[in-house]
Amino acid sequence: MNLRIPATLAALGLAGAAFVLADEGMWTFDNPPTKLIQQKYGFTLTQEWLDHVRLSSARLNDGGSGSFVSPHGLLLTNHHVARGQLAKDSTPEHDYIKNGFYAKTEAEELKAPDLEVDVLMSTEEVTARVNAATQNAKTPEQEGAERRKIIAQIERESLDKTGLRSNVVTLYQGGEYWLYRYKEYTDIRVVFAPEEQAAYFGGDDDNFTYPRYDLDMALFRVYENGKPIDSTNYLKWNAKGPSNGDLVFVSGNPGSTQRLDTLSQLEFQRDRALPLELTMLHNRYDTLGKFSKEGSTQEQEASSDMFFDANSIKALTGELQGLQEKRIIDTKREDEEKFHAAVLKNPELKAKYGAAWSDIAEAERKAASRIKERLFHSMDSQLFGFAVTIVDYAAEIKKPDGERLPGFHDADLKSLRFQLGSPAPVYKDLETARITGALELDLKEMGSNDPYLKALMAGRSPQATAHDLVSGTQMNDPEARKKLMEGGQAAVDASTDPMIVLARKVDAMRREQIKWWQDNVESVLDRGGELLGHARFAVYGRNTYPDATFTLRLSYGTMKGYPMNGTIAPPMTTMYGLWDRSDSFGNTGEFYLIPRFAENRDKLRLSTPMNFVTTNDIIGGNSGSPVIDKDGSIVGLVFDGNIESLVGDFVFDIETNRTVAVDTAAMTEALEKLYGAHDLLKEMMGQ
Amino acid sequence: MNLRIPATLAALGLAGAAFVLADEGMWTFDNPPTKLIQQKYGFTLTQEWLDHVRLSSARLNDGGSGSFVSPHGLLLTNHHVARGQLAKDSTPEHDYIKNGFYAKTEAEELKAPDLEVDVLMSTEEVTARVNAATQNAKTPEQEGAERRKIIAQIERESLDKTGLRSNVVTLYQGGEYWLYRYKEYTDIRVVFAPEEQAAYFGGDDDNFTYPRYDLDMALFRVYENGKPIDSTNYLKWNAKGPSNGDLVFVSGNPGSTQRLDTLSQLEFQRDRALPLELTMLHNRYDTLGKFSKEGSTQEQEASSDMFFDANSIKALTGELQGLQEKRIIDTKREDEEKFHAAVLKNPELKAKYGAAWSDIAEAERKAASRIKERLFHSMDSQLFGFAVTIVDYAAEIKKPDGERLPGFHDADLKSLRFQLGSPAPVYKDLETARITGALELDLKEMGSNDPYLKALMAGRSPQATAHDLVSGTQMNDPEARKKLMEGGQAAVDASTDPMIVLARKVDAMRREQIKWWQDNVESVLDRGGELLGHARFAVYGRNTYPDATFTLRLSYGTMKGYPMNGTIAPPMTTMYGLWDRSDSFGNTGEFYLIPRFAENRDKLRLSTPMNFVTTNDIIGGNSGSPVIDKDGSIVGLVFDGNIESLVGDFVFDIETNRTVAVDTAAMTEALEKLYGAHDLLKEMMGQ
Repeated sequence: MNLRIPATLAALGLAGAAFVLADEGMWTFDNPPTKLIQQKYGFTLTQEWLDHVRLSSARLNDGGSGSFVSPHGLLLTNHHVARGQLAKDSTPEHDYIKNGFYAKTEAEELKAPDLEVDVLMSTEEVTARVNAATQNAKTPEQEGAERRKIIAQIERESLDKTGLRSNVVTLYQGGEYWLYRYKEYTDIRVVFAPEEQAAYFGGDDDNFTYPRYDLDMALFRVYENGKPIDSTNYLKWNAKGPSNGDLVFVSGNPGSTQRLDTLSQLEFQRDRALPLELTMLHNRYDTLGKFSKEGSTQEQEASSDMFFDANSIKALTGELQGLQEKRIIDTKREDEEKFHAAVLKNPELKAKYGAAWSDIAEAERKAASRIKERLFHSMDSQLFGFAVTIVDYAAEIKKPDGERLPGFHDADLKSLRFQLGSPAPVYKDLETARITGALELDLKEMGSNDPYLKALMAGRSPQATAHDLVSGTQMNDPEARKKLMEGGQAAVDASTDPMIVLARKVDAMRREQIKWWQDNVESVLDRGGELLGHARFAVYGRNTYPDATFTLRLSYGTMKGYPMNGTIAPPMTTMYGLWDRSDSFGNTGEFYLIPRFAENRDKLRLSTPMNFVTTNDIIGGNSGSPVIDKDGSIVGLVFDGNIESLVGDFVFDIETNRTVAVDTAAMTEALEKLYGAHDLLKEMMGQ
Repeated sequence: MNLRIPATLAALGLAGAAFVLADEGMWTFDNPPTKLIQQKYGFTLTQEWLDHVRLSSARLNDGGSGSFVSPHGLLLTNHHVARGQLAKDSTPEHDYIKNGFYAKTEAEELKAPDLEVDVLMSTEEVTARVNAATQNAKTPEQEGAERRKIIAQIERESLDKTGLRSNVVTLYQGGEYWLYRYKEYTDIRVVFAPEEQAAYFGGDDDNFTYPRYDLDMALFRVYENGKPIDSTNYLKWNAKGPSNGDLVFVSGNPGSTQRLDTLSQLEFQRDRALPLELTMLHNRYDTLGKFSKEGSTQEQEASSDMFFDANSIKALTGELQGLQEKRIIDTKREDEEKFHAAVLKNPELKAKYGAAWSDIAEAERKAASRIKERLFHSMDSQLFGFAVTIVDYAAEIKKPDGERLPGFHDADLKSLRFQLGSPAPVYKDLETARITGALELDLKEMGSNDPYLKALMAGRSPQATAHDLVSGTQMNDPEARKKLMEGGQAAVDASTDPMIVLARKVDAMRREQIKWWQDNVESVLDRGGELLGHARFAVYGRNTYPDATFTLRLSYGTMKGYPMNGTIAPPMTTMYGLWDRSDSFGNTGEFYLIPRFAENRDKLRLSTPMNFVTTNDIIGGNSGSPVIDKDGSIVGLVFDGNIESLVGDFVFDIETNRTVAVDTAAMTEALEKLYGAHDLLKEMMGQ
């Protein structure tokens, strides 16, 4: 279940395009690989098919994807994508993660506190307009500023005109800019979730691996104006699931890939960014582990964060190991040398793009000099995050749209207010523990003379700092946050909330860091990446796909086993395997088979396909994506990539890279025979 | 099912001893790791326990191990060890491999044509006597000759005195010599074998891997004087099988390990021997594949050889890959450098042993110059093998025992006659195909000017050579072979059998090759190995075990899962998994579930443990070994090592190296509910 975007994965890379191999690619809906699919599979993607699939697909702001599976707004995604909302709805009396949830009627549905669902309504290329605005820039800094300005303008114009969330997306490393318009939904309700132990059978051990036996599903219903929406575009439910060899599609929102990062960028990830991020994640995981041992309330409070941290640790470790493989780096080097040579051979291309590689390498050298403070000035506090956002907001909102910090443009404001107004609880004791743990690590990594940490701690111990900040703050109250935000600069200046006071105190230092990083790293990488994007178009043409950007993509592939550890991993698993794996471990721990299954064995057809693998090219963010057959019906629910796919951030390997999905046959069998969710099934099956 | 000794694995290595890690080691019964086991597991190996286990264990001349499981000579081993005998008993009407076999009464039992079973009756150290005989030798050649002479003498004396098969075994690279005395049984009958598809479910794909779901068992009965023997020492049947974490023992005959080969020897394996052996094996496998497509008779004839070749290919490929891993070679280098440094530091040790490494490296350089002719002068013919043995026998038998070629000493003669007299069929059309295929490869590898190949082929094509030799020979007739053997040199000289004529023709060339290899390679490696064996004793003492020598060893360990491909492999599997894996592949091909299982699902307790893994240290030759609990009862049947164990030839890795065994619970469940073998079970369970 890596496929939710790891929350902590810093976006230090660039978007880019890749050589296209069989079944490779996360294609935009405006440039689907129609010819490739026709040639290889004899199937033609029609515009009607594409529109239907696009409008049936959704992006969830919790970092995943989903799809509509009934005409009444029923939205299918993964349990692990829904997990955050289930946690926020849970109480000491009702643990919806552990025990699951099923609303037999609409009235019983649970409000998801701060889930936002976006449906991509239209896209429009704006490359010419963006490029025109930046063409007279003299320096990368200027170019970056001009680009941010024009993008904000395009977004605001679109918002004003259509009322839709409007984002300009950078594709092909800046080779193209596209305006994406989304219908935003914010009234989302929980309809169904199985018990965590059914959704996540095999736990952290089986996470990112296959064969698997997980019912990693959840159903929401999308409301508008107090009523379920009419989702005229939804995927028909194919209760049989796919067969081995079937052509299938995945429509979802892959978060980020670095397929065309230069070698120096991969080396930066391998030698600097990933090891440091892992240090941070391990520290937090250990902090939370200690905290959760203090009692069952603490355990419940820390559970979601620990879950996602364990997930991120496994994902980043896999990525790091992939990058440490000589084979991977050698392949990269070879590709880069070929590409570079092609550019150098043509005098015009050489003059325009020849220096991009060394510019990027230089930016990474600079990044290396200050990467640690980006990670170890974190405080790791949700409450402090609120405070910083409020302080920033007061300052940014006064500026023209194009000059604001990222995240504060007009087009972002609706979403920003929604997040700051979230009623989801923030646990103060958990916050205290997290801040303490983070500051201890920060001190160790940066030293006690670090000016930023000195300002934060003002001579106190990590523990005392955390205690002072958390006990005195009101940042856990959504009303207090809203009031401050609405009060503007005057309210912020007048606040005595210790978190706000601290955010003001370190504001100048923070802004210096952000600006330095933007000017010395991001702008240069953006510009270098853009040059390489153009160079790639010039050398290889446009028969390719852009790196992932957490926007809607289509991938194609087939259901297919793969070589694994000396033998073959099967194309699918069955419910028999759930019993086998559970009994193989003595039915304990992460392999415990819950009574709902164990006691109803004889009701089930045990040969029912449970999970299956396909060659589709996906990555974190694709969690909850539908697997779709040629008829446009849903046959599966993406929930993971296998361990061999982790290096897919950098390289797609058709031999062993696999998407792992829950079979619709298993969901049907379970909903019917184990959960008695007959009405739900009727709705999904159009009966 | 690697654990039968690959027939083609040339014994180019040396025996040796290793540093002992947890659960590592294939220990001799006279030097068991009693203290280690006491310390780690609080269990004391008594002499009584050891004697009982030793006398309940057996070695099978088909390259595997077995154990007595009833007082009436019932011998348990693997289906894949029994396979050769099942093939030899099969006819076009009765395919006992495919369909299995079960003798409900003793009268129905099938004679195994040429199976020999050895039970180790006693051992006795003879190091002093061997060393005394070689102490005045001036050169390695002389030393080798003297050693062979004294060993033959010791063996003959023991045979005369006891009537038992007597072999001097070289342990600890020549650090010790031991006389092993065996009771030999040659009247062995087939009692039970399941269908191949049950024994070998998952086929070549799953071979050497885990999780597994194989009923890889067979039962023989050992006769003497026309009656089942009284096997007073037998292992009690524990029908429950072991539990996770249980301390268990394996008693069997590991074939060969190279744990203490020097780096130059491993490099020779990696760069020369293994790649060439794989070339040969692939060629033969392809030849047999083509042959078996000619018809169902041909398919049946070639099936056993193809089976074992596929097995050897997978095993040797795994070994080669292990040796190509930098980690493995680096570990080796580090160990060797430490050991070498310890020797060089001590002037006395340096003078005695310091040159051994470079002597061995020099011998490997020489070996490299003639390794190809050892492999590519093979003809790959069983019939020609008989002819060569007969021609050699006539010449060797006239010499004093100590001067004969290996295999022709007095102590070997009973076994030699048994093999030459085997009534097992040799298929002439198969022989023709094999010789043709082998000669084609030989020509390609050695060139058409190779004198030996010129002598073999005498201007004919590979096909014509094969046809002429095979069509005219009587070497497929055991009576003709016996007659020639008994007729001595005169009969051999007078023979016009084309195989014998050819064997006479190339005799001088063959002898030159054997002698050169013995003098320049084997003797030097033996001597170098012996020096290192002594050096190792001097540096590290004797708390260690010798490399495997296809003699009886005891290993200890626990039932335990292991990290696999990002997750954990379970300590055991269940019958549920058989259904899961079969259905996962659509119940086809190597994953087909035979009707006897499929149709009787509801009779079975599907949670019955099927296969399990332990940390015991084993290797090829251990196939069919019993897994024994602390009470001395049998709880499992070794049939494989996992893919991670293949490099165990060179390095034992406790983290992932695992023994794979059939659970007695699965054998009990199957015999009772699927095969109705109630009488057999009663006999085994002492009821």
